[in-house]
Amino acid sequence: MDLTAIKSPAFLKDMSYEELDLLSEEIRTFLIEKLSVTGGHIGPNLGVVELTIALHKEFSSPKDKFIWDVGHQSYVHKILTGRASEFDSLRQYKGLCGFPKRIESEHDVWETGHSSTSLSAAMGMVVARDLKKSGEFIVPIIGDGALTGGMALEALNHIGHERKDMIVILNDNEMSIAPNVGALHNVLGKLRTAGKYHWVKDELEYLLKRIPAVGGKLASTAERVKDSLKYLLVSGVFFEELGFTYLGPVDGHSYEDLIENLQYAKKTKGPVLLHVITKKGKGYQPAEIDTVGTWHGTGAYKIETGDFVKPVNVAPAWSSLISETVRRLAREDERIVAITPAMPVGSKLENFAKEFPERMYDVGIAEQHATTMAAGLATQNMKPFLAIYSTFLQRAYDQVLHDVCRQNLNVFFGIDRSGLVGADGETHQGVFDIAFLRHMPNLVLMMPKDENEGQHMVNTAVKYDGGPIAIRYPRGNGLGVKMDEELKELPIGSWEVLKEGKDLIILTFGTTIPMALEAAEMLQTEDLSVKVINARFIKPMDEAMLHELFSSEVPVLTIEEAILQGGFGSAVLEFAHDQGYHHTVIERMGIPDQFIEHGNVNELLEEINLTTDEVKSRVRRLIPKKQKRA
Amino acid sequence: MDLTAIKSPAFLKDMSYEELDLLSEEIRTFLIEKLSVTGGHIGPNLGVVELTIALHKEFSSPKDKFIWDVGHQSYVHKILTGRASEFDSLRQYKGLCGFPKRIESEHDVWETGHSSTSLSAAMGMVVARDLKKSGEFIVPIIGDGALTGGMALEALNHIGHERKDMIVILNDNEMSIAPNVGALHNVLGKLRTAGKYHWVKDELEYLLKRIPAVGGKLASTAERVKDSLKYLLVSGVFFEELGFTYLGPVDGHSYEDLIENLQYAKKTKGPVLLHVITKKGKGYQPAEIDTVGTWHGTGAYKIETGDFVKPVNVAPAWSSLISETVRRLAREDERIVAITPAMPVGSKLENFAKEFPERMYDVGIAEQHATTMAAGLATQNMKPFLAIYSTFLQRAYDQVLHDVCRQNLNVFFGIDRSGLVGADGETHQGVFDIAFLRHMPNLVLMMPKDENEGQHMVNTAVKYDGGPIAIRYPRGNGLGVKMDEELKELPIGSWEVLKEGKDLIILTFGTTIPMALEAAEMLQTEDLSVKVINARFIKPMDEAMLHELFSSEVPVLTIEEAILQGGFGSAVLEFAHDQGYHHTVIERMGIPDQFIEHGNVNELLEEINLTTDEVKSRVRRLIPKKQKRA
Repeated sequence: MDLTAIKSPAFLKDMSYEELDLLSEEIRTFLIEKLSVTGGHIGPNLGVVELTIALHKEFSSPKDKFIWDVGHQSYVHKILTGRASEFDSLRQYKGLCGFPKRIESEHDVWETGHSSTSLSAAMGMVVARDLKKSGEFIVPIIGDGALTGGMALEALNHIGHERKDMIVILNDNEMSIAPNVGALHNVLGKLRTAGKYHWVKDELEYLLKRIPAVGGKLASTAERVKDSLKYLLVSGVFFEELGFTYLGPVDGHSYEDLIENLQYAKKTKGPVLLHVITKKGKGYQPAEIDTVGTWHGTGAYKIETGDFVKPVNVAPAWSSLISETVRRLAREDERIVAITPAMPVGSKLENFAKEFPERMYDVGIAEQHATTMAAGLATQNMKPFLAIYSTFLQRAYDQVLHDVCRQNLNVFFGIDRSGLVGADGETHQGVFDIAFLRHMPNLVLMMPKDENEGQHMVNTAVKYDGGPIAIRYPRGNGLGVKMDEELKELPIGSWEVLKEGKDLIILTFGTTIPMALEAAEMLQTEDLSVKVINARFIKPMDEAMLHELFSSEVPVLTIEEAILQGGFGSAVLEFAHDQGYHHTVIERMGIPDQFIEHGNVNELLEEINLTTDEVKSRVRRLIPKKQKRA
Repeated sequence: MDLTAIKSPAFLKDMSYEELDLLSEEIRTFLIEKLSVTGGHIGPNLGVVELTIALHKEFSSPKDKFIWDVGHQSYVHKILTGRASEFDSLRQYKGLCGFPKRIESEHDVWETGHSSTSLSAAMGMVVARDLKKSGEFIVPIIGDGALTGGMALEALNHIGHERKDMIVILNDNEMSIAPNVGALHNVLGKLRTAGKYHWVKDELEYLLKRIPAVGGKLASTAERVKDSLKYLLVSGVFFEELGFTYLGPVDGHSYEDLIENLQYAKKTKGPVLLHVITKKGKGYQPAEIDTVGTWHGTGAYKIETGDFVKPVNVAPAWSSLISETVRRLAREDERIVAITPAMPVGSKLENFAKEFPERMYDVGIAEQHATTMAAGLATQNMKPFLAIYSTFLQRAYDQVLHDVCRQNLNVFFGIDRSGLVGADGETHQGVFDIAFLRHMPNLVLMMPKDENEGQHMVNTAVKYDGGPIAIRYPRGNGLGVKMDEELKELPIGSWEVLKEGKDLIILTFGTTIPMALEAAEMLQTEDLSVKVINARFIKPMDEAMLHELFSSEVPVLTIEEAILQGGFGSAVLEFAHDQGYHHTVIERMGIPDQFIEHGNVNELLEEINLTTDEVKSRVRRLIPKKQKRA
């Protein structure tokens, strides 16, 4: 069928299992083709084709509400709710979002991006439903990886306690972004490996009776799955202890299994957990055989071979540069222990893990635990390196403040994907980190201008013993600069003059340095002489240099790829006024007070006017101002 | 014995059970007497007398490490580690801290205050120990309430997976600050109520064999506890599924039980969870019979009667004013649902709960879940009111940003205990909220000057439909002002002139208004005319008024009881420079870039120079500056 002709999921109601199988095949072909051009989260979406179709067949969206945890597995849902024709623009500027988006469709009732929020949101919706007596089904769909996030566990606990009607779909695909870790995953693992538990018949019967609405029916379902009685009991105990009726496990690629169990679930009172086993990448060989997560989210690829269409770029990825320098230093510094919350591949820690398996911990999706575990290590004179994406560090705000900074512990944060990240959009832009870290006492925060300075910063962070220290670095690749062989230590709080000039001073760091230098160079031809400073220490700032700069009474322009409210530019304003430089002209460029959508980073920078042209026009405006005063 | 003569816990090693019982009694008498004068966390500490003594007898601190979750139950630990003589200064300025404090003693290896951090910290210490092969015991002590916090569950999951040696003490006292909620608590509850499960003998034997080091021994321990075989099995399954060896439950007031089980635990490989049942307030009748948490933390009291020595204060508590106004409005607005993360008493929501039991949710210690559940409610056109302490809102930073503000949902935050809180100290000061909220797009943030304005702000927040809105209010009582009968709506972003003046403008809000007015009044006698503005909307600010003020080119002083970095004063600087008022003299007063210790709020304000005197001297300094320019 023509998928782009779908306007609503209502057509599914009358379809037979055979027709549904055919539809699955068409959707898979569609996704494999479209994503081969645009890139996207291919693995997760191929895994939930049948599950999504079954959900839309059994429930009536938008009255019934689906809440897609993380949300990058919502492509099939988007196709079934009338958005197939927009897939050519997936994850592009002004195009279809890669996550649920309320303005896109009434079927998107909750926006996700960060993990583990779905159960809490669902609980809110359930409470609202029961107060309004509107009676719809609330159906969060959560992966086994997201289930290890603390807030999902908080929610499970509360939902189990309240015993209100909710149907939780546990989408268990044996792998979230990286192979899951954690004991909770082991519990789920028993469903697959079993053999360990021996249950007597009496117990079995007793436990089966505890699911009253289901009774004998379950036993017959169970026969179809190898050893499923054991599976059922063992896993059931865990969720049932929390107050859920446990159903499953069911084959997430069998319509018969899915629909039968969804129908049971609809009839069951109180919270139900339906355990669905799916295969990531199902139906596309290269993605199916993936064991490390390469096919979780990809760029463009060749369908036949599964080869990725790589942009030509010789410079190393930032993640790799930072993690590999940590690995190099770990050879001589036994205090270094690396921690990642479920991102060993994204953070390029695979080599570190191979070389130092005893000193590498992937703690799963658990940013809070990761941070405070690092703090615990630091109390024992170790040097933990926590590699974490800027946007996910938001989850550990209190741990960074209360546990690390307050105790002034030597934790080394590698804040990856800082600044705009592009296609993942609003939920993933790493633009708040400066504003939420700068007010934390004791923290040192740096950003390198290029990968050579980056490696020196890693060395500086490892050698530093004064408390917490963080390097923020962008998504993507370095500039391809020559790398020093010997690692240096940068004096804490030291800035660097990149270009001399006398009419105006630009203070900037990291990704916005090139636009500052380019603008400065171009302005030279207009006889405007601009000084450019690499303000590589965001905190503490180079106060000696600031005194010198402000004494000259030359106007100052700050530029940062970060939110302006409370950011670096504000730190400069604060310094100026605290130190009595009340009359200096200071302007700030950066990310305005709004959430930044998805799209190519350059398009986004255009949109918010963070461009070389804008630097030039600001400089032109500011310099006359100064001259008027003089 | 003379408790103040204790220098180290080593003396416990040779004590008999009888001697230990005597010591317990002496410590209880000591605590009841000392705290009757100073106030403090009496209930939790009376509950852990035997547990703490048993731990110090069986382990060798500081080599072995105790990590006290939350930490307000560490008084007995402080007595046993040589700090009894300092109890007269408990929680006072420069006195003994009410929480573990590393600078106080080498026995305090980890500082707490916020809940649920101990397991993650312990995991860090365990990893360090195993890398160093130093072999000490790592013993986190966590309450059943703290166990529902997401990060504790993240940690349990990871610890269970790694299977490293760790002895977790679960201090189950049936009540954290408020009666526990949550399914996890139900699991623990089964240990006490039982009867629900029927286990056959084969199963029992099988499960007992799963605890190899313990085996038959446990069965005999179990006989001593009523129905404990059932208890053991049911609870055991939960923790054992996560990878722990479960021991208990043991009577936390019996040295024989405690020490026998601690000795088992020391011999057991891998993570152990020892479930200890204690009674909060044990040994002091008024605290023992407390069912709502009145004796969790108290001020001074009369020992004989248990009557509290109340300061004379007729003004209503801020928490009460806000929550009661919400209750009043809930009568006519059915959309209002109140949520508290385990603080129904502290947030004064008891009356709301009684009047609207269906519209009140205590979700336990689960700030992340509480926030996103509120967001879920808001998607369904409800008006959730989340009452949360400023310091605990830090735990939900990402949920406020990613779920509430990003989706621009009508969540109403009541941010209680904002600003300095006093005796609880560093971990509880609510001084970061402005800095961490101000950069969140879409959020409206207010602070009232008095309780009358407070009630109008509650009304404003309830009526507002433009997105998230928050009122921050301080710990303690209002000013005793006359209350309007009719509730008003304040125009969003509107400030108010409190006093006219022409030489200098003070912009301030909330608790610092009185010092500004007092200073302004006193300066009048020096012929200095100071204008005072109630900047009650911290975001958005009153831009029309700001334009007017800055046009006058009069110097500006901002005052806030909040961290200065990225705070309200910075917002004023940002506005001034963004709008081209580059030459205005602007100075800021507030909390400097450091953590603020415990003590009386007035003493703390003195220490950081946030006083009427300092306002006066700043004004005197700033006005001549302006005149020199003119």
